[in-house]
Amino acid sequence: ELGDLIEAIQPEQRLALVRLLGDDFDLTALTEVDEAIRLQIVDQMSNEQIAAAIGDLDSDDAVYILEDLDHEDREEILAKLPFTERVRLRRALDYPESSAGRRMQTEFVAVPPFWTVGQTIDYMRDEDDLPESFTQIFVIDPTFKLLGTVDLDRILRTKRQMKIETVMRETSHAIPAEMDQEEAAQLFEQYDLLSAAVVDENDRLVGVLTIDDVVDVIQEEAEEDLLRLGGVGDEELSDSVIETSRSRVPWLAVNLVTAFISASVISLFEGTIEQVVALAILMPIVAGMGGNAGSQTMTVTVRALATRNLDIHNAWRVARREAGVGLINGALFGTLVGVVAAIWFRDVSIGGIITTAMLINMFAAAMAGITIPVLLHRSGTDPAVSSAVFVTAITDTTGFLSFLGLATWWFMSG
Amino acid sequence: ELGDLIEAIQPEQRLALVRLLGDDFDLTALTEVDEAIRLQIVDQMSNEQIAAAIGDLDSDDAVYILEDLDHEDREEILAKLPFTERVRLRRALDYPESSAGRRMQTEFVAVPPFWTVGQTIDYMRDEDDLPESFTQIFVIDPTFKLLGTVDLDRILRTKRQMKIETVMRETSHAIPAEMDQEEAAQLFEQYDLLSAAVVDENDRLVGVLTIDDVVDVIQEEAEEDLLRLGGVGDEELSDSVIETSRSRVPWLAVNLVTAFISASVISLFEGTIEQVVALAILMPIVAGMGGNAGSQTMTVTVRALATRNLDIHNAWRVARREAGVGLINGALFGTLVGVVAAIWFRDVSIGGIITTAMLINMFAAAMAGITIPVLLHRSGTDPAVSSAVFVTAITDTTGFLSFLGLATWWFMSG
Ligand SMILES: [Mg+2]
Ligand SMILES: [Mg+2]
Ligand SMILES: [Mg+2]
Ligand SMILES: [Mg+2]
Ligand SMILES: [Mg+2]
Ligand SMILES: [Mg+2]
Ligand SMILES: [Mg+2]
Ligand SMILES: [Mg+2]
Ligand SMILES: [Mg+2]
Ligand SMILES: [Mg+2]
Ligand SMILES: [Mg+2]
Ligand SMILES: [Mg+2]
Ligand SMILES: [Mg+2]
Repeated sequence: ELGDLIEAIQPEQRLALVRLLGDDFDLTALTEVDEAIRLQIVDQMSNEQIAAAIGDLDSDDAVYILEDLDHEDREEILAKLPFTERVRLRRALDYPESSAGRRMQTEFVAVPPFWTVGQTIDYMRDEDDLPESFTQIFVIDPTFKLLGTVDLDRILRTKRQMKIETVMRETSHAIPAEMDQEEAAQLFEQYDLLSAAVVDENDRLVGVLTIDDVVDVIQEEAEEDLLRLGGVGDEELSDSVIETSRSRVPWLAVNLVTAFISASVISLFEGTIEQVVALAILMPIVAGMGGNAGSQTMTVTVRALATRNLDIHNAWRVARREAGVGLINGALFGTLVGVVAAIWFRDVSIGGIITTAMLINMFAAAMAGITIPVLLHRSGTDPAVSSAVFVTAITDTTGFLSFLGLATWWFMSG
Repeated sequence: ELGDLIEAIQPEQRLALVRLLGDDFDLTALTEVDEAIRLQIVDQMSNEQIAAAIGDLDSDDAVYILEDLDHEDREEILAKLPFTERVRLRRALDYPESSAGRRMQTEFVAVPPFWTVGQTIDYMRDEDDLPESFTQIFVIDPTFKLLGTVDLDRILRTKRQMKIETVMRETSHAIPAEMDQEEAAQLFEQYDLLSAAVVDENDRLVGVLTIDDVVDVIQEEAEEDLLRLGGVGDEELSDSVIETSRSRVPWLAVNLVTAFISASVISLFEGTIEQVVALAILMPIVAGMGGNAGSQTMTVTVRALATRNLDIHNAWRVARREAGVGLINGALFGTLVGVVAAIWFRDVSIGGIITTAMLINMFAAAMAGITIPVLLHRSGTDPAVSSAVFVTAITDTTGFLSFLGLATWWFMSG
């Protein structure tokens, strides 16, 4: 595919390729490449060229390219388009970013309810200006109000003389244009939709959302969550060193703050460490194992929230389960580490202290791993972005505090 | 939907609900619930009941339920089914787990190339035994060899007297039944397919893979990668405390080993720490910031490998970029931490040492973050499963070794 080819070659060669293709260059390829590459290529094309090429695209692909341009270029390109096309694109661009209205295609087949199946088939045979591909037609009244939908296989199985209104489905999962694309994607998954009508606030049909674009949304959203959990922002493989470095700084900066908090917790126990150096050797184990246990719970929680599998109905049950898991694994690994530490440093009390500290920390990790994402989610923040920082802050602090605190109480007050 | 309802209610109520619905219980709902719940319900149903209910399902949904049963139950249920159905299900079950053949549906519409569009439409109007819904019909020769495909919208736009062979598309992205479902899903994404023919080794049509099931595959695979990166195995929200605890132990155990390796690195420098306690306070910062930087690079790499955006063509360029990012962010945060440390402990040499150690460690983190997933991927291992352990092992070890090593050289040899 052209999109893959464009991504594979060197940046300098990309422009040469586009120039070589000239008018044969199909802008659809641009909807399949990284944003950075898309911008690079579009930047080098004149607005005349873009306007000419955009005329051949489905409206959703045209919007996908136009939405990333700056306001001035966009207006100039729109002004060069024929009136009806301009109106249609502008309507989609007026809906909020990442809404169903932005992702919809304004080309669709709509017929009145009183037509027969035969009339409908004849209309499709004769009409030249149909969408490139479609799986469903819509039934509307004269004001464009959506009445129902008919799948193409339904039309093909039905006798010609049947009326459209008798074969249409009324529950057609119409999607409000303002709905977030992620929510719309969930409807597609839940009801196994291939396409869905997009309607405005008056229930009037304004476009159609198709599964191939929903698949891209699902991929994007899954990618977003994965990268955010890994502490990476809106980043693409084609970004430069400087862009990449800058996109990673915020996460590192926030983590630096929590790292200094942990360091100051440790500094409270300077005296104890000076006397029992074993503590300095063992303390990263307590903090690290807590961090791992916490990130396990957090990952499960963030994913369950994203797929709406975790809600008020089962949050309490899942929290109890995580508490149980934290205690069991805390006891298990605490004991294991305790025995090894006691043998290593020939000191049973070190063993007992680290066992207790790990039990406390892995329990705290489990609780933080579920509570923090749920609270962030409730407060309207994306839990994938910031959960990890808070969870690590809690497991580090609890780990150092419990381990060094217990050790100080035992060794220093004795 | 019934599936959602089943997931929301208490385990005990689930069986009551299924019993209440009796023969009205549509097993399709089971394809939408967690595996643990599915098994719970299916376990409680008699093989007669399952066999009766499975007769009403699409073959792919039937296979989805049958594949998780033990061999004996499965055979008993299959034995109760009519011959043709049994043969069709067994064929799908014979293909490897997670292959296109397992996910395909064996109900499809296939016509010979010499039929006209009109004949085809009439056939669909008269035939009762069509798939529940379809968007594409297949063109085959008498031996079931796949010749091409025709989309339904194409049929509807074409005059009745046209021959099918003149409207069919020959490049139909047929999918070999043995192909992994993940690879098949990538073809769907790349070519925006709604359905695709599944063919056996002789290019004979054996089934059809549809986008709604591919969407589930995409979701599953994205979920798998996210959970694996978070150190969680094949886990579901409905699992019990014991099951969950057990699924998390392997990851914690592996991390414990690397934690002890870090601890033994620290123990090499016991003498230095005893004399300069500031080192014990600051060392988690060096290791932790390296770990964060490493996990950023690793997340991007694992995702890019999963979506096949990273391959031999650009691996070298991305590696150079990550090296640059590691050096820039290492210098930035190293300097920042160095200044703070120098002020905190009123010791410029501590500042210089931590700056150098952080620069080294964040560079090592970037290199580990890209090299480890790529090497695991090349060796055929899933990089999402084990990258994090290795990356952490490297950033911890490098962090402690460089920081405490430099400090020992500076403070102890002076
Ligand atoms: Mg965009
Ligand atoms: Mg979103
Ligand atoms: Mg579905
Ligand atoms: Mg589209
Ligand atoms: Mg598209
Ligand atoms: Mg999201
Ligand atoms: Mg189905
Ligand atoms: Mg399964
Ligand atoms: Mg797989
Ligand atoms: Mg696509
Ligand atoms: Mg299916
Ligand atoms: Mg399904
Ligand atoms: Mg995978």
